[in-house]
Amino acid sequence: MLNFQEAVQVFDDFYLNNLIFPPEPHNLYEPCRYTLEGAGKKIRPVLCMMAYQLFREDFTEDVFHTALSFEMFHNFTLIHDDIMDNAAVRRGRPSVFNRFGQTAAILSGDVMNICAYDRLAKVSDDVKLVQLLRLFNRTAIEICEGQQLDMDFEQRNDVVLEAYIEMIRLKTSVLLAACLKAGGILADTTAANMEGLYRYGIHLGIAFQIQDDLLDTFGTEESIGKQPGGDIRANKKTALSIALEQEMGREAFGREMSSILRTEGAEKYTGVKRLYEQYGVDKQVRKMVQHYTDSAFRDLQSIDVPDDRKQHLQVLTQYLLKRTK
Amino acid sequence: MLNFQEAVQVFDDFYLNNLIFPPEPHNLYEPCRYTLEGAGKKIRPVLCMMAYQLFREDFTEDVFHTALSFEMFHNFTLIHDDIMDNAAVRRGRPSVFNRFGQTAAILSGDVMNICAYDRLAKVSDDVKLVQLLRLFNRTAIEICEGQQLDMDFEQRNDVVLEAYIEMIRLKTSVLLAACLKAGGILADTTAANMEGLYRYGIHLGIAFQIQDDLLDTFGTEESIGKQPGGDIRANKKTALSIALEQEMGREAFGREMSSILRTEGAEKYTGVKRLYEQYGVDKQVRKMVQHYTDSAFRDLQSIDVPDDRKQHLQVLTQYLLKRTK
Repeated sequence: MLNFQEAVQVFDDFYLNNLIFPPEPHNLYEPCRYTLEGAGKKIRPVLCMMAYQLFREDFTEDVFHTALSFEMFHNFTLIHDDIMDNAAVRRGRPSVFNRFGQTAAILSGDVMNICAYDRLAKVSDDVKLVQLLRLFNRTAIEICEGQQLDMDFEQRNDVVLEAYIEMIRLKTSVLLAACLKAGGILADTTAANMEGLYRYGIHLGIAFQIQDDLLDTFGTEESIGKQPGGDIRANKKTALSIALEQEMGREAFGREMSSILRTEGAEKYTGVKRLYEQYGVDKQVRKMVQHYTDSAFRDLQSIDVPDDRKQHLQVLTQYLLKRTK
Repeated sequence: MLNFQEAVQVFDDFYLNNLIFPPEPHNLYEPCRYTLEGAGKKIRPVLCMMAYQLFREDFTEDVFHTALSFEMFHNFTLIHDDIMDNAAVRRGRPSVFNRFGQTAAILSGDVMNICAYDRLAKVSDDVKLVQLLRLFNRTAIEICEGQQLDMDFEQRNDVVLEAYIEMIRLKTSVLLAACLKAGGILADTTAANMEGLYRYGIHLGIAFQIQDDLLDTFGTEESIGKQPGGDIRANKKTALSIALEQEMGREAFGREMSSILRTEGAEKYTGVKRLYEQYGVDKQVRKMVQHYTDSAFRDLQSIDVPDDRKQHLQVLTQYLLKRTK
């Protein structure tokens, strides 16, 4: 059984040894290669591999194809999201959109999406392939819906926490959940275990994302690797801002915020942060993170294999959510 | 056996009776509905249905799912192509990009692509679904490659006819070919017949597209439904312009064109058209259309079913290429 670092290594070996994109047309595939070269932490393929290893020791090629397929899909969404968000930087490098231009980002994103399907279709077991394909489709559609809701919410002033969490579930959680469930499908486990894995991914994703909101305001530059306060400066809707609006009532919230939002920089950041503390919104959101974290661990607990097999997934979960502590 | 009009009707009935996109998120699915409502001639789904009916009389739901899947994929490519080409009009209406904005066009295009896969995955026969999926993937990748080559060619001055035809094959033909072959897969025909159908689609697509180039310069407003000369006005690379460059030699071509291209409007159009005739390029390109048309009919001939079953496909081919006569 592989731990996180070992799993990343094995995954990297597989995909570096597989020429993923053909050399030509260069302008189509170069942005794809650029994107995968800069690939992030590889959480998604590793979740698929670790879920598989709950039940079976030896990987088949089908596991790697599936893990890579999800990773490619995730990278496709980043390429297109960066166009929509006009984001110049991704993983410390120029975004595809910024580096290769918008047309390249659209078309290379499209082909990366299709190549993700093409990779999935290399799964050799027809019955599993069809199961995986249907899971993949449902997940991919939900991710588009989540991205749409995220954009819609920025234009609305009536978003409640439940709707926000549903948006996170769609935009972030279902992909983690699908990667985990795919590992279960490939390992031929029970339907109950597959559903346990899926729920675990949902709760893990929600906890992670709300945590992200918290840290952006209450983290230190040291702990999060960037200046805190980015969400406040960008007037972004977060679990904190929505909870504050619910606590204060829309009218008082609107009054207070419109006065603070006229200020800029450090003053704005400290003003909003102080409001969060004054209304106990930071504690409320911390409790939410704890709730979803507990649920995630309970889901993992529910999976019917000996506890020692779950160790690596537990460590990975703690690593992903460690910033709660 | 259905003729073209009847097949369109049966296809429309199927898909109007199937709620294809959910109501929410509205901003995600409204552009998708808008696109399919304005859907064009439905050549691709009809080719799939007619290929199936070469071998079997009664449609299964699997045929409609597959036909719709290809139609959705085609419409997805149009949505994204219109962003890349900055095209304001599509099928006589504002393009999605123009009507709903760029962000909507990117994300709705993405979900339409995924929904095409989702529709394909409704095929109930696992073995056929896997065959169709692999055909679909290969085709979709080639179409992206064709779109890239098309854009690359506009920036190059060394494109030869063979490369141009290869671009057309990828951008246009492989989708027609895949629709036809898919009909064959669904009808359980022989590998030889499937390949015959595929080749027929390739030749049909190339003949159609080169013909399109010819008509844009030599057609009448009456016959093509728009003013001729659009390609010349836009300095677009076509079979005609490439053939002319090959006939004249690059240097003479460059000299002659740079003087003509300084003129505008009617003068430019008549100037370039006169060059095409002077160098016999119109005749050369007409011969190419005839060559690929003959090949298409020969491919259809090669399919091992009684001739009377091929009647509707022959009529459709003549209809699509009638403008050659």
